[in-house]
Amino acid sequence: MTDLVDLTTAADKSDGARIDVTALGQTLMGRWADVRRRSRELAGREEFQRIPGQPMDEHRTRVFGQLKRLVEERSVHRAFPVKFGGLDDHGGNLAQFEELVIADPSLQIKSGVQWGLFAAAIMHLGTDRHHDQFLPGAMSLAVPGAFAMTETGHGSDVSSIGTTATYDAGTDEFVIDTPFRAAWKDYLGNAALDGQAAVVFAQLIVGGINHGVHALYVPIRDGRDFLPGIGGDDDGLKGGLNGIDNGRLHFSGVRVPRTNLLNKYGDVDENGVYSSPIASSGRRFFTMIGTLVQGRVSLDGAAVVASKVGLTIAIKYATERRQFSDTRGGDEIVLLDYQRHQRRLITRLATTYAMSFAHERLLEQFHAVFSGQKATDADRQDLETLAASLKPFSSWSALDILQECREACGGAGFLAENRFTQLRSDLDIYATFEGDNNVLLQLVAKRLLADYAKGFKNADAAAIAGLVAMQVGEVALNRSGIRSLAQSIVDFGSRARSIGYVRGAAAQRQLLTDRVHTMVASIAGRLKGVGSLSPEDAAALFNSNQNELIEAAYAHAELLQWEAFTDGLGQATDSGTKTVLTWLRDLFGFSLIEKHLAWYLINGRLSTARATAITDYIDDRLLPRLRAHAVDLVDAFELAPEHLRAPIATGAEKERQDEARAYYAAKRAAGELPGDESAPKPTK
Amino acid sequence: MTDLVDLTTAADKSDGARIDVTALGQTLMGRWADVRRRSRELAGREEFQRIPGQPMDEHRTRVFGQLKRLVEERSVHRAFPVKFGGLDDHGGNLAQFEELVIADPSLQIKSGVQWGLFAAAIMHLGTDRHHDQFLPGAMSLAVPGAFAMTETGHGSDVSSIGTTATYDAGTDEFVIDTPFRAAWKDYLGNAALDGQAAVVFAQLIVGGINHGVHALYVPIRDGRDFLPGIGGDDDGLKGGLNGIDNGRLHFSGVRVPRTNLLNKYGDVDENGVYSSPIASSGRRFFTMIGTLVQGRVSLDGAAVVASKVGLTIAIKYATERRQFSDTRGGDEIVLLDYQRHQRRLITRLATTYAMSFAHERLLEQFHAVFSGQKATDADRQDLETLAASLKPFSSWSALDILQECREACGGAGFLAENRFTQLRSDLDIYATFEGDNNVLLQLVAKRLLADYAKGFKNADAAAIAGLVAMQVGEVALNRSGIRSLAQSIVDFGSRARSIGYVRGAAAQRQLLTDRVHTMVASIAGRLKGVGSLSPEDAAALFNSNQNELIEAAYAHAELLQWEAFTDGLGQATDSGTKTVLTWLRDLFGFSLIEKHLAWYLINGRLSTARATAITDYIDDRLLPRLRAHAVDLVDAFELAPEHLRAPIATGAEKERQDEARAYYAAKRAAGELPGDESAPKPTK
Repeated sequence: MTDLVDLTTAADKSDGARIDVTALGQTLMGRWADVRRRSRELAGREEFQRIPGQPMDEHRTRVFGQLKRLVEERSVHRAFPVKFGGLDDHGGNLAQFEELVIADPSLQIKSGVQWGLFAAAIMHLGTDRHHDQFLPGAMSLAVPGAFAMTETGHGSDVSSIGTTATYDAGTDEFVIDTPFRAAWKDYLGNAALDGQAAVVFAQLIVGGINHGVHALYVPIRDGRDFLPGIGGDDDGLKGGLNGIDNGRLHFSGVRVPRTNLLNKYGDVDENGVYSSPIASSGRRFFTMIGTLVQGRVSLDGAAVVASKVGLTIAIKYATERRQFSDTRGGDEIVLLDYQRHQRRLITRLATTYAMSFAHERLLEQFHAVFSGQKATDADRQDLETLAASLKPFSSWSALDILQECREACGGAGFLAENRFTQLRSDLDIYATFEGDNNVLLQLVAKRLLADYAKGFKNADAAAIAGLVAMQVGEVALNRSGIRSLAQSIVDFGSRARSIGYVRGAAAQRQLLTDRVHTMVASIAGRLKGVGSLSPEDAAALFNSNQNELIEAAYAHAELLQWEAFTDGLGQATDSGTKTVLTWLRDLFGFSLIEKHLAWYLINGRLSTARATAITDYIDDRLLPRLRAHAVDLVDAFELAPEHLRAPIATGAEKERQDEARAYYAAKRAAGELPGDESAPKPTK
Repeated sequence: MTDLVDLTTAADKSDGARIDVTALGQTLMGRWADVRRRSRELAGREEFQRIPGQPMDEHRTRVFGQLKRLVEERSVHRAFPVKFGGLDDHGGNLAQFEELVIADPSLQIKSGVQWGLFAAAIMHLGTDRHHDQFLPGAMSLAVPGAFAMTETGHGSDVSSIGTTATYDAGTDEFVIDTPFRAAWKDYLGNAALDGQAAVVFAQLIVGGINHGVHALYVPIRDGRDFLPGIGGDDDGLKGGLNGIDNGRLHFSGVRVPRTNLLNKYGDVDENGVYSSPIASSGRRFFTMIGTLVQGRVSLDGAAVVASKVGLTIAIKYATERRQFSDTRGGDEIVLLDYQRHQRRLITRLATTYAMSFAHERLLEQFHAVFSGQKATDADRQDLETLAASLKPFSSWSALDILQECREACGGAGFLAENRFTQLRSDLDIYATFEGDNNVLLQLVAKRLLADYAKGFKNADAAAIAGLVAMQVGEVALNRSGIRSLAQSIVDFGSRARSIGYVRGAAAQRQLLTDRVHTMVASIAGRLKGVGSLSPEDAAALFNSNQNELIEAAYAHAELLQWEAFTDGLGQATDSGTKTVLTWLRDLFGFSLIEKHLAWYLINGRLSTARATAITDYIDDRLLPRLRAHAVDLVDAFELAPEHLRAPIATGAEKERQDEARAYYAAKRAAGELPGDESAPKPTK
């Protein structure tokens, strides 16, 4: 409620701004708009959609059938080589998968298991012989397959898995074993029922030497029966994604030919000699599991799509639903006119826009790396850092958004038919699979710390990096990271002069950037001298900073989201759209600053007056302005009724409201409305 | 990481403190410990437990059968009059219901519908004739019943419901109508299948005058068939609680005898003359719906129990599960030794303790009011304010706790067998039923504002109160509220002098209290002069403060939780328990202050140095100390294996870890461990 009148600029007053919904929709669909639309066309068909309440067994059968239909529709092979009927289109391939979340997240993820993990591992880790022998079956679904990496005992720490593949020179075979219960492969899609083969990750042991984790192609079933030496469990009912048959696999002396080793990054020749094009076993390991990045990229995209679905439903309902009136006998108020409701939904709409622009940027980078346009180690590591930053942000945000939408629609929001609860249940696991969010953020933090240490010639750089690596596995080091952050700090000084200044993009960028930089520098300072400590003391010191380390990485993710949104503004084709999107970007930026206001105050980046002004500006300016454009902003998501499939998003509520009001109006006109007890005359 | 050494007191060093788990368990079980244990004994039996994945129809049948078994076990009639076989024990009755959440939240809530809403409405709103005629059937479950208050068009705003009960003098009957679609009763447990009767809330129209909302007993089915004039829908699958047959009911000219009006607070005599012991129609309405408070009380209690279940499972697993090692080849680290994991779970353990103590206090107050020991309007209103404060806090906290537990257990946490996901799905609706949390918090805020305005002779008091009432329905005004807060501010001044001082209970109390008081005063100041504005402008001004108003009410709820925890410390029977509980209470208090740090900084209540010290104290002192007691603290919840029913809480993980380590040790001893590629000698 601070007086902001003097800060109002011309742009603030353009409340007559209108969004070009069609053009904005095209912008949001991004580079692979055609592929997305084609996938949405499929997702809009009943045959691909989830049936709420379908029992697990039937749901699994249905989803497996849908996978076959996707093959028939020729919509799952874009990423594969032209030679095998694909299109070598990596970005488009993920775009198509992401949109399947609209039909059923189980369909999206089971497709991901078959083509994004199982077949992709054959493609990326294997060589010609494997492509020729195994890829056609994996692509056509003739051979459903599992991606057998995670074990009951080791999820995030892949390098410590217990499964072994021991070379037997006598028979020129590998012998696969899971020597104890914790080494059983677990949570694998396709493992409980459908899988006929698996790409099995194991410690590769040749001549008594462990060459680290490698992948082998292993047939596991003949029809419904496990092959000899192989057994398994069904993981059973899960919190969501029950259209997927997750399960466990264990191996006892299972033999496969030596040539079943997917040998692109490590091979054993007919003389039993191991060789690899990558000398460092650490770098080799991270190169091999680097192909997993596409899973993280596609989860990021699917989280964006699901958030769009949820917000479209909740915001449409909020513009029709009325509850309570301002004045006695007056019209009841539309939910979205309440300040609290705007706070709940419009701030999350801003987050969703940021996520959408950020994902498009990630997908571009993914495409460039996987298509070979950007092929250096640094490019690949940048991609991995970006994915490890965005996926935690978007997967957690999607859960938060879907839950707030559910609650904002009250009891109606709890009915399965209105989508929120089932989408939320399915997306729950996105926070911990394909990399636990807290572990991914530590990978990002390590990169930030390492870059910082190198930039400042900190003698402890190696020691610090080593400590992070101990705790979270890790990718190799790199130089770029927050280099650009230092630049932006030089440009803008450290003090905002007014809310008017803070409103500028440059100031928002500075505040967000400065926070990441300062947090990283502060942690690095505290870790100074860690190299001279005993391993135990060093570990304890590091652990005492773990929480802030993760917070710093999350701040970095927020900055990336904000930057992508800001870059996205440049794509607006008309001034009305640009004006409204700028308000929405400001809402996102201010919400981030407001969330971390204590930090900005403690570190002297904002005065208390300015800190207060930020909250006031959100409540008094941005939310009321954006409220008028909320429906346009969700319409730009281009989600049709067959994508929303929620009775409360169909206009039914407005019909009910109109009917009720017509009833009272007719009663009143006829003089039949009962009088009030205390004032016996019609009041309604 | 601030140096806190100089602030360390003797109490800080008592790391040798031990909790008396048995005594603490008894304290937590509270006044109705025997009833709770008896109910837990039932909840521990398989026959009362949810079967994960059971289809909705079978689940409904199972739960209805379980209700019959509860009658046979004589465990659902405590709250009813001795005359009808009850015990007149209101507090014990809710305690027994709350524990049923352990078996299946559907069982808890369906029991609540039958005995806490349907039968309780007959008891509390009806008179002797209704008790004699209807109570036995409702109590014995011979007549399953619905509580038909909510409509599709009106949930939170009960006074605006559209259903009418019109007195027909010619036949001495009431005629029930739902004149338009929005007036259909909706989301009613027992309505879709089992209900044979309903307590129907309707606008009571007698001789052309609307006397406001009253309740009537209405038979709705004969066996499976609806009675003439009645129809309905099944709400179908929901996000949770699918053991309950929620549905819709509509009425067209349905006639019931005049004497079916539950007439304790409003009656029509045989001459068609309306009378009521409560002259004000507003006060009458709030008296009638005041009986609903027991629903809110029991949800608060069930949220506490569910949080205890979740945290016990997650913390036990976190003390066994290992991932990553500090040092090359060293032992892997137990999850709960990671700082981040402590932040995630131990802070939530502190919240659960606060909720547990606060609920016990609420239950005591509920019992005193409902048993007639405290029978004034003020007592009843205090109870309603307390319930409206605690239920939003505990229902939201339970969702947050269960989700964090789920994520902290990774993929294992997502398996239905480990409980988190199903409990969370079931408890989701607790945030919006029996009063939407955001609406309840506005009721609390209104009370805070009204008390403030009266205390300061603010001329706008009535206008302000009127505005809040417009937006959220409302209970009558009252005087006590934050009176005690003003007192505590006088006692302690406004500045903390050191972290040592902040660590004291008095300072924590002052910081939390001051925030509530200042926020309320600030909003009241902004609303000054609202009485002289046009209704539209007044409404707009009020709405522009809605978000902060709700935040103020939530701050009040946090204060109540903290106070209850602090009072609870007094029940500790030994110094070890008291020491550890005090750390836990400090963690809760400091976490609240940390969460709102920006407010304390902006308002000059904490210096930046002190603000930083609070976070450091949490990370460097409280979490490491409490980590050692985490298992004792969850053991004090007295949850047995048959209550937890989670494979990951059985010690299975430790067995797997031990087996794996034994395997490697044996290999190493036998010289069979493969060498590392770069350093070909055993490293594991």
